[in-house]
Amino acid sequence: MDMKTIGIDLGGTNLRAGVVDEKGSILVEKSIRTETDKEPAYVIQQMNDMIKELMDGHDISSIGIGSPGPLNPHEGRILSPPNLPGWEDVPLVDEVQAAVDVPVHLDNDANAAALAEAAFGAGRGHASSFYITISTGIGGGYVLDGKIVQGAQGYAGEIGNMILKPDGPSWSNLNAGSFEALASGTSIGREGKARLGVDGGAEEVFRKVKEGHEAAALIVDDTITYLAMGIANLTHIVNPSVFVLGGGVMQAEDLLLVPLRERLNDYLYPQLRNQVKLEPAELGTKAGLIGAALLGRTEAL
Amino acid sequence: MDMKTIGIDLGGTNLRAGVVDEKGSILVEKSIRTETDKEPAYVIQQMNDMIKELMDGHDISSIGIGSPGPLNPHEGRILSPPNLPGWEDVPLVDEVQAAVDVPVHLDNDANAAALAEAAFGAGRGHASSFYITISTGIGGGYVLDGKIVQGAQGYAGEIGNMILKPDGPSWSNLNAGSFEALASGTSIGREGKARLGVDGGAEEVFRKVKEGHEAAALIVDDTITYLAMGIANLTHIVNPSVFVLGGGVMQAEDLLLVPLRERLNDYLYPQLRNQVKLEPAELGTKAGLIGAALLGRTEAL
Repeated sequence: MDMKTIGIDLGGTNLRAGVVDEKGSILVEKSIRTETDKEPAYVIQQMNDMIKELMDGHDISSIGIGSPGPLNPHEGRILSPPNLPGWEDVPLVDEVQAAVDVPVHLDNDANAAALAEAAFGAGRGHASSFYITISTGIGGGYVLDGKIVQGAQGYAGEIGNMILKPDGPSWSNLNAGSFEALASGTSIGREGKARLGVDGGAEEVFRKVKEGHEAAALIVDDTITYLAMGIANLTHIVNPSVFVLGGGVMQAEDLLLVPLRERLNDYLYPQLRNQVKLEPAELGTKAGLIGAALLGRTEAL
Repeated sequence: MDMKTIGIDLGGTNLRAGVVDEKGSILVEKSIRTETDKEPAYVIQQMNDMIKELMDGHDISSIGIGSPGPLNPHEGRILSPPNLPGWEDVPLVDEVQAAVDVPVHLDNDANAAALAEAAFGAGRGHASSFYITISTGIGGGYVLDGKIVQGAQGYAGEIGNMILKPDGPSWSNLNAGSFEALASGTSIGREGKARLGVDGGAEEVFRKVKEGHEAAALIVDDTITYLAMGIANLTHIVNPSVFVLGGGVMQAEDLLLVPLRERLNDYLYPQLRNQVKLEPAELGTKAGLIGAALLGRTEAL
């Protein structure tokens, strides 16, 4: 039997919804701008309208929503995401569930993308995978035996808050010297401003590296060191079969991936050197929608 | 039907073997000194003799061995444990398997203890648990859904090598500023020598704290900070339902546990504060043997 589910990618910029088949293909997709200046109730109504249209003519068995965190996946509540201003403790699953007669699930966007990459992207065929999105921030999702590890309070995969250097920079509500404060796109941009005096963020730093700018190359080199440390920690904690690296910063994959694989060896037990697989994500911006559609297909751990 | 299995705790000091029933009770136990000055083949022969005696009169369905690491649980090989000098790449499972007709399993001692605490100790009834042994070194074991997470190369739970402070002390073959170098019994002893000039290791530092010695209290306070950071990292990575704390250092539980629960809050996302459970281990030195007996009862992840 064909299994079709709806995935919804609720982002701070766009609200996307689509019907996904059992092979991970998006059969139909709808996208509108997320009107974050309106009440959550308004956006939820739009979401319910999109779902209704998509369910017309498709036999849908479940609906999954991926959203920026923090959120409570067990209770289906959005807590207070920086990327969705005004969404304070919103019982999103209840609001959508009231409008449909199939099960509705919620998880954070990184966990959704992790599931998609594990099933249909760079993690497929592996017993376990750890998805890392390196973008404005750093997020993650750990998939084991085809299931997302949510954790007791839903905070598994919140690797951006991992402490790597207690005397390092502070950053929003994260720990001082967190992985995110040391190795995200924002941290590359911050160092670009501090060391090079440029305002163009990570993109400008990468551009300067390609032009042969040495101080810019040192910024990227530091980022690679912190990425290697963070990935080594994850290896010595859960030792996944593969790390899948996504997010906007990985568009500079040609500057990052090969030296990162090398640098990682410096922080691993000798027996693990050259054994740990790092692969670029394959599904790009579709991962969130596809992964959301998978939330109802597998149980979470 | 009664399920009985044999657990073997191969330590650097003692070799223990016992028959464990389905409730986790040890029905019969044998213990001898581990003759580490002899060849591994000699010790394995002793182990096989103990197994033969234990199998007499008991219907045994599997045998599990817990050993110091590093080892390869998938291939059943002991690699080169510092605590078992001379055991270089020993195919232990093959050697024992040749002598019996029930399945033989191998995992490291911390993973075995983690399984035992999850099934019959402080982790029972929880969906997931992370066992941390704080002793000469720091080890760990992550149990999810009743199964030990071994990882792709068997290095899951090797949390002693987690980097917490890259400019921190170096330590055997671990990363500079590793969790073990900052928060183990050995590190407490090292700081005792450096700051107090005492040679009695962690025990003497704890004794001095109880006598009201302020500089000794500061050493313990630093240890609590690093333990809190390490546990916060594990929380933001896998968010287990409970942390189970064992090992020799936890004999000073009265000095550690209450302040550690408090300090942990400093490094957690606000929504997680006072939500993360830290519990002392319950099975003591029996955990290794009981957990080894469980290796064949559940699949590993």
